Amino acid sequence: MNFFCKNRIFVAMKNKTYCVIMAGGIGSRFWPISRASRPKQFLDILDTGKTFLRATYERFLPIVPTENFLVVTNAVYRDLVLEQIPELLPEQVLCEPVGRNTAPCAAYAAYRINAADAGAKMIVTPADHLILDEEDFCGIITKGLDYIADSDKMMTIGIKPSSPNTGYGYIQLEDDNVCPGGITRVKTFTEKPDLALAEAFVASGEFLWNSGIFIWSVETFMRALAEHLPEMYGLFNAVTPYYGSPQESELIRQIYSECRSVSVDIGIMEKARNVYVCCGDFGWSDIGTWGSLYDHSPKDAAGNVAPPDALLSNTEGCIVKVPQGRTVVVEGLNDYMVVDSGDVLMICPRSREQDIKRFVEELKYRGQEAVV
Amino acid sequence: MNFFCKNRIFVAMKNKTYCVIMAGGIGSRFWPISRASRPKQFLDILDTGKTFLRATYERFLPIVPTENFLVVTNAVYRDLVLEQIPELLPEQVLCEPVGRNTAPCAAYAAYRINAADAGAKMIVTPADHLILDEEDFCGIITKGLDYIADSDKMMTIGIKPSSPNTGYGYIQLEDDNVCPGGITRVKTFTEKPDLALAEAFVASGEFLWNSGIFIWSVETFMRALAEHLPEMYGLFNAVTPYYGSPQESELIRQIYSECRSVSVDIGIMEKARNVYVCCGDFGWSDIGTWGSLYDHSPKDAAGNVAPPDALLSNTEGCIVKVPQGRTVVVEGLNDYMVVDSGDVLMICPRSREQDIKRFVEELKYRGQEAVV
Repeated sequence: MNFFCKNRIFVAMKNKTYCVIMAGGIGSRFWPISRASRPKQFLDILDTGKTFLRATYERFLPIVPTENFLVVTNAVYRDLVLEQIPELLPEQVLCEPVGRNTAPCAAYAAYRINAADAGAKMIVTPADHLILDEEDFCGIITKGLDYIADSDKMMTIGIKPSSPNTGYGYIQLEDDNVCPGGITRVKTFTEKPDLALAEAFVASGEFLWNSGIFIWSVETFMRALAEHLPEMYGLFNAVTPYYGSPQESELIRQIYSECRSVSVDIGIMEKARNVYVCCGDFGWSDIGTWGSLYDHSPKDAAGNVAPPDALLSNTEGCIVKVPQGRTVVVEGLNDYMVVDSGDVLMICPRSREQDIKRFVEELKYRGQEAVV
Repeated sequence: MNFFCKNRIFVAMKNKTYCVIMAGGIGSRFWPISRASRPKQFLDILDTGKTFLRATYERFLPIVPTENFLVVTNAVYRDLVLEQIPELLPEQVLCEPVGRNTAPCAAYAAYRINAADAGAKMIVTPADHLILDEEDFCGIITKGLDYIADSDKMMTIGIKPSSPNTGYGYIQLEDDNVCPGGITRVKTFTEKPDLALAEAFVASGEFLWNSGIFIWSVETFMRALAEHLPEMYGLFNAVTPYYGSPQESELIRQIYSECRSVSVDIGIMEKARNVYVCCGDFGWSDIGTWGSLYDHSPKDAAGNVAPPDALLSNTEGCIVKVPQGRTVVVEGLNDYMVVDSGDVLMICPRSREQDIKRFVEELKYRGQEAVV
């Protein structure tokens, strides 16, 4: 497999587990901090000292050796990935010519791994989630890996819901008595529900949040791809002789243009019968919105999320995000977002965060591409 | 007089009118745009393309030749003055070692002028006011100069009040029928009144706003100084042999430390009997507060004062001031000031502008001297 140094082969042979980090997202929900040129996964929005991508990489390092990571992203983010995880060889960054949701992303990675290491297992994970208890997390992942070993089971990680969040997909369980660490068969996957439905889901005890983390053997995944997304399977399978070769990139470009845009959840997991879920309770959030960032950030006595030296008076429930070293004075503001990205200042009620899309569209329309 | 080039002497002899610009103020009311290191007079807060100081200089140029200007300021602002009015010779900037209000400032300038040009007339003006109709303004000043010529009258410029503004001092007239351009004797000077009093003043027709612009012959002013502020007169008079000499600066340093802090209005004009006022109506404001800047700035349909490319929605009555090129998005904010000075962001209801002093004090207390 040409993306391994020779001296890494021994380690790779010892550990047949691969981690595929999906880092191609381009959402604008954290605008103006996130930009088309630097989306959320490449940012340290939580001020942890690490970007989401870097944190994801480090989180899996106790389980997966560096040479077994693959990061799938858009070609334009290739350098950002290598900058944030300089331990990776350039060949470990798989570049998608265009985003086609998660199914082609997982398929591309599976074929690349298979070309180098038959019989491997793979973990597929988003690049931009928050996980609080990383030790517990590793325990759950290891449990999942053990469960699918030498089997044709596909595993997903579900999260014990702490609220009827309408921003997440839900997984319905066959066994509603499952505890954190427990594993059960999946009954259904559901898309983001409305609030009434989400409340019913949580009350029933039958549902977990869908974390979007999957574990399976490459072989099992390829079989599922062939069965449930046969056209996509055909496209990626046809490239088999060329994975890891100089032709790969051009061939990938061609098949992506024909590839359907579909998620792993909808394209494969919803249809498959051999899907299991491991229940996690390690403090998880996809930090998908400013509201969720507010919820997961430490607050002052007045419920503000702000730099410690911000001068806030008669101000409650605000989230204030400014570049380091910038002095902020806020008087008499309640429940707003004040976000300063350096070149953009946005002031918006927290309850209106869905309007951010509109701001970005408006600025694009005005030709202010530089700030979107 | 050593601050004139030789080739300027002829012009100076032809025009015995001097303009003294008082540019020593250090107010914090326009914080965070204004700073101790660059107060309002050195800023272009109105976005006219000129700082207040520069605009003041240019406003008097039709009446006073460049070599007859003196700018009195604190020593720390000397370079700022010469940068903004490069036409001046360094000797035309009089440096006060410490601020002692306007009376010592006018006295210093009067002695400096007298040392070089006996029999001169002088105009004393603040450096940081807005005047809309500059032609009309020049007409009024010329009228005042003519009126005091060869007389011992002291002239002040009063402004026909357009509102019962409580931020201004008022001048009571002996003749309440005076029209713009008319001149009458002054009955009293009053300090900033409360609203009820200000309303009574305006309704009576007997009062004008005090612009703080004075016109007199140097000789008349010195006589008034001797009569009403004899100690101050003694201090400045003792330096007479040294104005324009290398000793001046050190001697000025010594007398300022003994000088009482008092305004021209209170120290001299209120007590003098020979005070006249010329009534102006040329669109004047001291632009003393953010509120006054808001009042005097062009507004959009929703009453916002903001850069034309700011993206404001559901936002009314706001003043948004940010560095050029910065993108601003504001959603759902009414009657706030949003001021971004580059290193400081302040968000504050327009009705709470008196709190700015408190913010500045708090930041000083925290040791953030760099931003105050």
